Amino acid sequence: MLKQLINHDQVNKSDYKDLEQKIRSRLLQAQLRVQQAKKPVIIVIAGDDRSGRHEAINRLSKWLDPRFLSVNAYGPSQHEDEAKPFFWRFWRDLPGAGEIAVYLRDWTSVSIVQFLNGEIKKSKLSKRIDYINNFEQSLIDDGALVIKCWLHISKAELTNRLMEIRDTPFFDIKDELALRNYDFAVETISSTLAKTSNPNRAWQIYDGSDAKSRDIAIGNTIADQIETWLDSAPKPTPKLKWSPSNSTHLEFPEKVVSYKEDEYKARLAELQEILRKQMFDVQRLSIPIVVAFEGWDAAGKGGAIRRLVAPLDAGFYRIRPIAKPSEEEYRHHYLWRFWKHVPRNGHLTIFDRSWYGRVLVERIEGFASEFEWKRAYSEIKDFEKQLKSHGVLVLKFWINISKEEQLRRFKEREVTPHKQFKITDEDYRNRSRWDEYVKAVEDMIEYTGTKKNPWHVISSDSKLMSRISVLEITTSSIKKMINRRS
Amino acid sequence: MLKQLINHDQVNKSDYKDLEQKIRSRLLQAQLRVQQAKKPVIIVIAGDDRSGRHEAINRLSKWLDPRFLSVNAYGPSQHEDEAKPFFWRFWRDLPGAGEIAVYLRDWTSVSIVQFLNGEIKKSKLSKRIDYINNFEQSLIDDGALVIKCWLHISKAELTNRLMEIRDTPFFDIKDELALRNYDFAVETISSTLAKTSNPNRAWQIYDGSDAKSRDIAIGNTIADQIETWLDSAPKPTPKLKWSPSNSTHLEFPEKVVSYKEDEYKARLAELQEILRKQMFDVQRLSIPIVVAFEGWDAAGKGGAIRRLVAPLDAGFYRIRPIAKPSEEEYRHHYLWRFWKHVPRNGHLTIFDRSWYGRVLVERIEGFASEFEWKRAYSEIKDFEKQLKSHGVLVLKFWINISKEEQLRRFKEREVTPHKQFKITDEDYRNRSRWDEYVKAVEDMIEYTGTKKNPWHVISSDSKLMSRISVLEITTSSIKKMINRRS
Repeated sequence: MLKQLINHDQVNKSDYKDLEQKIRSRLLQAQLRVQQAKKPVIIVIAGDDRSGRHEAINRLSKWLDPRFLSVNAYGPSQHEDEAKPFFWRFWRDLPGAGEIAVYLRDWTSVSIVQFLNGEIKKSKLSKRIDYINNFEQSLIDDGALVIKCWLHISKAELTNRLMEIRDTPFFDIKDELALRNYDFAVETISSTLAKTSNPNRAWQIYDGSDAKSRDIAIGNTIADQIETWLDSAPKPTPKLKWSPSNSTHLEFPEKVVSYKEDEYKARLAELQEILRKQMFDVQRLSIPIVVAFEGWDAAGKGGAIRRLVAPLDAGFYRIRPIAKPSEEEYRHHYLWRFWKHVPRNGHLTIFDRSWYGRVLVERIEGFASEFEWKRAYSEIKDFEKQLKSHGVLVLKFWINISKEEQLRRFKEREVTPHKQFKITDEDYRNRSRWDEYVKAVEDMIEYTGTKKNPWHVISSDSKLMSRISVLEITTSSIKKMINRRS
Repeated sequence: MLKQLINHDQVNKSDYKDLEQKIRSRLLQAQLRVQQAKKPVIIVIAGDDRSGRHEAINRLSKWLDPRFLSVNAYGPSQHEDEAKPFFWRFWRDLPGAGEIAVYLRDWTSVSIVQFLNGEIKKSKLSKRIDYINNFEQSLIDDGALVIKCWLHISKAELTNRLMEIRDTPFFDIKDELALRNYDFAVETISSTLAKTSNPNRAWQIYDGSDAKSRDIAIGNTIADQIETWLDSAPKPTPKLKWSPSNSTHLEFPEKVVSYKEDEYKARLAELQEILRKQMFDVQRLSIPIVVAFEGWDAAGKGGAIRRLVAPLDAGFYRIRPIAKPSEEEYRHHYLWRFWKHVPRNGHLTIFDRSWYGRVLVERIEGFASEFEWKRAYSEIKDFEKQLKSHGVLVLKFWINISKEEQLRRFKEREVTPHKQFKITDEDYRNRSRWDEYVKAVEDMIEYTGTKKNPWHVISSDSKLMSRISVLEITTSSIKKMINRRS
């Protein structure tokens, strides 16, 4: 099946020198143009066992300027990787604008290997395929070029290659298994490649049996694809089907009920003690936790966060305040910086503002284009689904106050010496767009709040109530998670 | 001995609430000022076993705004850390300008523990002490504040604490040993703290027996030190004893001898094959390698690097082209970005330009102040010594050409279509300062080329000769390293 997809010529030995020189100069030229165009290029070199992936990548590194090429070849025993969701390391190593990154052991081939080794089931592989498609599409939507090469060899060729190395230290017991499983493996590969192909990022299949023909063909694909991509007129931005929701998730009660000070203190202490104790189980069970806080300016996010972490061991959590992206972050997909901070198993990360900035401030201020923020809803859902499927407990809070209460707090801050720094013109500017924000928040909750990943809207006109609510929801969610995992 | 150094009051239980409120507001104020002053603060909380370091850090995280505090508490089984030089993770986690970072398990206490556990010998501990002093001094010279707190408890108190937990899961066999070793441990701690104290960064000793008194005292130290540091008039820049060298390491031969094309090709292939084979041993022996390339514009660094990596497996090396620092890099000590890229054991990193920029371009263009570049010579020596002592093979190449040859190559580039992008006005500007650069290079070689870490000046008026020289020196250095480690 794979064989029929091979679509390149054999190279005569005598022509090779010439062809190599030509492809080299094309590739160098293409690399330079990528730098100038400030767009990222992702190249996947994957393939059957013993099909020469390493050799192909080594040759590519010789042809291209290796100083501006990063090769991501993941070795074994990367403990850090295993303690994070599957896509974490691939995100971490994504090229920035103007960079080219080559992946050996990419997301698709590792998934296939995991399935063939019995580490993941068919259903998990199919889920993975969805994630792969969404991941790649999201990179392409963000302006990247994704080139995917698969190296294939026939059963006869594999047999020959194994014969050659049978009595050397290069031979591995796994090779024996690979040969025995050959037909099934090729079937799985064929179907997986078909399911992860798309006109924008189709798998190209190469015959791995002759190294020179293979590498010239790969080089040509890469040069062709980069040239076409850079030469073609920019595509019109796709119109996304999207309509504002008519939902009313935000409530602004007229009357505020609050705790009495001593009731509050007692309940706070009680919940903090529960949380403190839960952490033993969280660490024992290696549960990772992500908490995202969003909310109106002056709604009390900071205070809620402080009460949440107070009972925790400082080595166990990190708080990531999210401000505008740095240069480096800006050169990457907007989710890159959030993926980077996904906690390892058994740890907690709190985001003080989060990836939802894309559909809130970036939408309203126009920092994200319509195509960008409209597609962000599904990108975000996918991100959170991936966290979940790795076992991360994800909690999302919208800290809500009424427009009147916000004004009251702004005024209060202005007259309180140690709070004055907290209030700036920007706060008033944001406030003047209150109604637009309400719509954006409603859309966000409607389109990203799922049954499994709900938004918790916390009424915060009473700060005391809101701090208690955050702790109640957190402890009860952790409790459920612990029970499920025990 | 430690006991006599304790210099804080006991807190009455009845006063605690008041004191806590006061210290909290001072700390929050101090934290805000640090952000505004855009300077980094490093706080070390270390101490005897069972002296309450964790509790103290947790309390600090409650008092300060935890959103802008990073706590570096290193757990066990950080494989990545072990495959890197000792100071690597501490450098990685350094605060940037305006940030406060707290270290639990810092460089000094880990060194003491390693010594007490027999993992390092007395001589290694003494070497470590030198590195610690240099490390901290270098941070202070760079504008940081370093606050170091040591929590101490008496033998009687330790005995009590162990009695209390003896029959609980919190008791550890190591506690038994700690008690038996108490006197020796305190002796080691006392002498190590004395040797790593300095008026700018003296260890403060606290009585760990009463948690409240201890934490109030620590809080006061931190607030006092930050306030004093920010309030005091900027110190006049120290005058460093330094004089230009009169060395003549650079040679500019009038007559250039080169290889014939076929001789070159044969020798190149031979050396690349040697290098290729050496890599099996390098990986087997887990030898990390760092190669730094410096040299004149158009001297041929890129070509030499390409010939060097051509025989290598692409997953094994990384090339780091060094341009101007990013925002984030700029907010840190200048060595921070180089520490970040130190390879793990068994890997190779090539720096295309390096930390030597500090004493070359930054010196000449005035990007570094006199105090900065003058002290950089010893900072750099220390950095490389640390790499060496971890077992890193460090190679440093200066690729040298004559002024005439440089001009010839500039002209050649200008008329070669695919090389035109390589030549800019900046190249001519640098060239106009040739003589100043010669002096800077001479000083660099004189002051950072040591017997163990020599500079290799590569005559590159003939590119072919220079590529061969780089490979010859590299392979022979690797060979020596392999022999030593086998």
